[in-house]
Amino acid sequence: MPSDNTFQPDWSEKPPKKESYRSVFKWGSPYEFKHPSSAWYTMLKEKFNLKDSDFKKPRLEGNEKVEIDREVQLSKARINKFIKIAGKKNVATDDYSRVKYSQGKTVDEAMELRRNIVRNVPDIVIHPKNKKIVKQIVTYCNTQKIPIYIFGGGSSVTLGLQTPEAGVMLVMSTHMNKLLEINELNQTARVQPGMFGPAYEEDLNNAPDRFDTDLAYTCGHFPQSFEYSTVGGWVVTLGSGQASTYYGDAYDIVLSQEYVTPAGSFKTLDFPGTATGPKINDIMKGSEGSFGILVELTMKIFRHTPQNRQRFAFMFHCWDDAADAAREVIQGEFGRPAIFRISDPEETEVGLKLFGIHGTPIDSLVNLRGFKSMERCMFIGTAEGEKGYAKHVKDQVSRICKKHRAMTLTGFATMLWEKTRYKEPYMREDLMDYGVIIDTVESGVTWDNLHRLHQGVRSYIKKRPQTICMSHASHFYPQGTNLYFIFILKAMELKEYRKFHDGILKAILENGGSISHHHGVGKLFAPLMKKHLGKEQMAVLNALKKSF
Amino acid sequence: MPSDNTFQPDWSEKPPKKESYRSVFKWGSPYEFKHPSSAWYTMLKEKFNLKDSDFKKPRLEGNEKVEIDREVQLSKARINKFIKIAGKKNVATDDYSRVKYSQGKTVDEAMELRRNIVRNVPDIVIHPKNKKIVKQIVTYCNTQKIPIYIFGGGSSVTLGLQTPEAGVMLVMSTHMNKLLEINELNQTARVQPGMFGPAYEEDLNNAPDRFDTDLAYTCGHFPQSFEYSTVGGWVVTLGSGQASTYYGDAYDIVLSQEYVTPAGSFKTLDFPGTATGPKINDIMKGSEGSFGILVELTMKIFRHTPQNRQRFAFMFHCWDDAADAAREVIQGEFGRPAIFRISDPEETEVGLKLFGIHGTPIDSLVNLRGFKSMERCMFIGTAEGEKGYAKHVKDQVSRICKKHRAMTLTGFATMLWEKTRYKEPYMREDLMDYGVIIDTVESGVTWDNLHRLHQGVRSYIKKRPQTICMSHASHFYPQGTNLYFIFILKAMELKEYRKFHDGILKAILENGGSISHHHGVGKLFAPLMKKHLGKEQMAVLNALKKSF
Repeated sequence: MPSDNTFQPDWSEKPPKKESYRSVFKWGSPYEFKHPSSAWYTMLKEKFNLKDSDFKKPRLEGNEKVEIDREVQLSKARINKFIKIAGKKNVATDDYSRVKYSQGKTVDEAMELRRNIVRNVPDIVIHPKNKKIVKQIVTYCNTQKIPIYIFGGGSSVTLGLQTPEAGVMLVMSTHMNKLLEINELNQTARVQPGMFGPAYEEDLNNAPDRFDTDLAYTCGHFPQSFEYSTVGGWVVTLGSGQASTYYGDAYDIVLSQEYVTPAGSFKTLDFPGTATGPKINDIMKGSEGSFGILVELTMKIFRHTPQNRQRFAFMFHCWDDAADAAREVIQGEFGRPAIFRISDPEETEVGLKLFGIHGTPIDSLVNLRGFKSMERCMFIGTAEGEKGYAKHVKDQVSRICKKHRAMTLTGFATMLWEKTRYKEPYMREDLMDYGVIIDTVESGVTWDNLHRLHQGVRSYIKKRPQTICMSHASHFYPQGTNLYFIFILKAMELKEYRKFHDGILKAILENGGSISHHHGVGKLFAPLMKKHLGKEQMAVLNALKKSF
Repeated sequence: MPSDNTFQPDWSEKPPKKESYRSVFKWGSPYEFKHPSSAWYTMLKEKFNLKDSDFKKPRLEGNEKVEIDREVQLSKARINKFIKIAGKKNVATDDYSRVKYSQGKTVDEAMELRRNIVRNVPDIVIHPKNKKIVKQIVTYCNTQKIPIYIFGGGSSVTLGLQTPEAGVMLVMSTHMNKLLEINELNQTARVQPGMFGPAYEEDLNNAPDRFDTDLAYTCGHFPQSFEYSTVGGWVVTLGSGQASTYYGDAYDIVLSQEYVTPAGSFKTLDFPGTATGPKINDIMKGSEGSFGILVELTMKIFRHTPQNRQRFAFMFHCWDDAADAAREVIQGEFGRPAIFRISDPEETEVGLKLFGIHGTPIDSLVNLRGFKSMERCMFIGTAEGEKGYAKHVKDQVSRICKKHRAMTLTGFATMLWEKTRYKEPYMREDLMDYGVIIDTVESGVTWDNLHRLHQGVRSYIKKRPQTICMSHASHFYPQGTNLYFIFILKAMELKEYRKFHDGILKAILENGGSISHHHGVGKLFAPLMKKHLGKEQMAVLNALKKSF
């Protein structure tokens, strides 16, 4: 079939069929979609040597009804015990529940589910109503030696929900999803772990009405998964939000946690400063369910002042300039931007297409001013907080960017980015329907190793022909940042893909990055932890696990 | 003898005799002193019903030569092994070394040493030259089951250096006291644990000359013990500096640590952000030597810009106003002051005397403007960082203080305070020479519990007749602060004093404070930790200890 410039694929806008595999792996709301722009579509065809005809018929959509041939191993008596504890309505052993609540959003899982392959399932899914019920379940499972797994929002991209030994899956987001109390003096919110980002943020934004506070608040944590991840999930997987440079990582915004563990229940101390170390609150962060079940959190919250938000965006001539300016900003001791992201040349190009800047007057001006395609780098950001503070941060950022020969793009680019900030994951399904994989890895890094890591990982990915690799840094610390790699490639078999992906992780470790900056560890990275930490430090984690 | 207004005690300016008990318990340099001002002297006499005659002859000065009747339990062979490992010059078994390097600055210890009482001593004192030697010692002691203790600067006020089971004391500050490297890109300093504050800060301030850096740096950590405490000590005891509100507590400024433990040696990951939790770096902080020996640190450092420092001081009508304003400042999202201290009415009165403000025109003006003695509260502070930032923070602080009816005292009061900031501990010896004890306890607290803790602890202390109790808050977080209680009373027997002191700790716990905000735990608070944390959380710490 000859190429037709007006052709656009019939990107799916159908909600997945009920109880289908697709309904499990599709990102986010069944009714929401985001499709590649026509500029993107053209790019995909060019890059992957595809024709319009390749986009006529979606493949492996996973529309089949979930059916697994795996019997529940738990005895009837045990199931009845769980029903007695949690209530009949809150206990499920049907195929669909067992699959839905044990699969995350890892590319491996999507590839498998599209092929109706399910790696593991739990025996039983329980939706606990409160911490008392969690405690009863833990006590019972401990005596009966039944493994327990936790499902929050289900957004894990590290196989964090896999259940290698069957057992019980506790779904925290069905009932335990409320904001319980705002303590305005302390600026803290007592919240249940299964509360989703938007509900939490809405309660805080509307605190004067809903909680009778004087001021409105914000949670300060806005990961890309914001809409479909939970407060508890943020903490146990050590997430970072897009405004983390100002508000801190999930690690930083938890004042205290309450856990139910086989070795007993406890709430960690909630002093903002204390020398009674080591701090149990910090020991529990990032434990990903392996030490116990998080049943309540006291989170730090922040004044909500969107009216003070300052937006800015700049174009740099090259990655080195962008990185140097970013380092100068975060080490400048004048406060910090909130959103803060520098894109490498390839991401800048794709981003210009994605955000719709490509072809606008801004684009023309950038070209005219000599910022060359595949060299230029985009920087977008915001400053938040008190009005004068936000203004001052913006002014200082501008000063530093200009010093590094950057051209201002005004706050327009940032606004475009903000509009779609939570929507990008939806594109994954469109692409995969036509045999294109989009996936990400990310890593923490110190400044002195930024370029080595960037080049090392990028060159491994780009060694594979016809592969798009976009990188950005978006969480900044005076001592370093993160690198986030997004790669797009033509689909292959899962085994081959796993090999390719393992090679990326190897490239990260060989080039001195951390295995994960904010995606967590999960079953995907767990095998690498010993190499990453060394046996002595793994022994510390194992000792902790054993003690629980 | 009739009172004579011109009489002043003959405060000692003699350096302690060589190898005397006094040379062990005296704070700081043997040649440095700070005496109570004449206003203080008058206050002490009035408060404690003392006469000039009571200050004629110092008591229990501890001028006797240290002599202990405790044999070294280690065999000759073992001692020779240590000599072989560490070198003859670096191994001591003489009485004086054994006492000097096992006593801190806890009031209990001073009271005992003045009476020539020594509770515990190690068998042997070793000054290791490097981490290789530490490793050899740890390996040997582990096979031989010989306990190891660590001495850094010796400034513990929590019986942190006591050696209940004899064994080996490693002195880290004799040789392992160097700044090894500044990584300017990462803004980090690789430093040995035994380096004292002033040497560390001087190296950083003079980094362009000494380490060929472009910029000068500061460590950001200035505890009152700054001159006689070590970088490693700050971290393992979770200290806080006087500018912690801006720079962070010791906890916050350590990027990574290297440990030698019986279970192996390791360096924690040095990524500024990573989701490979739980973080071993944080698990080790505050372990006070119970998990292993800290042999090297990578510390975060900050740009040194003293020329940008802004000073301010205010007088409030009452403690409630001061606390409300302080909370508004730290929750205001406009940046943070560095030094930031509010004094309660009693500390304000004593402080005016101590800093020499009493009787100056400022004092007259404050009285004239209706700020009443024993109601008014002083606030002193600085803002640091980039010039515009520091200025903006100062302006916002001023705005908030004025809103709370405070009167500015200009930066003068803060400058007076800065002059003597490290000198106050020297007064302890003067007072104790004449039978007056000065001691401190401190606690972390959330905002909603500030007044309860303040009143609860204060009322316990004040229940004892003739007792001065001054309190301040000096480390601020959006979620709370600390309370630091300084109490002065007529000396009593140690047993009675311990009972009184235990009562204070009980009052802290009963009123919802943490056992320690930045003094650490030591042997003094260890017995309370189980009650403070609960048995489940103590089990976590015990499991960690066991694993090492």
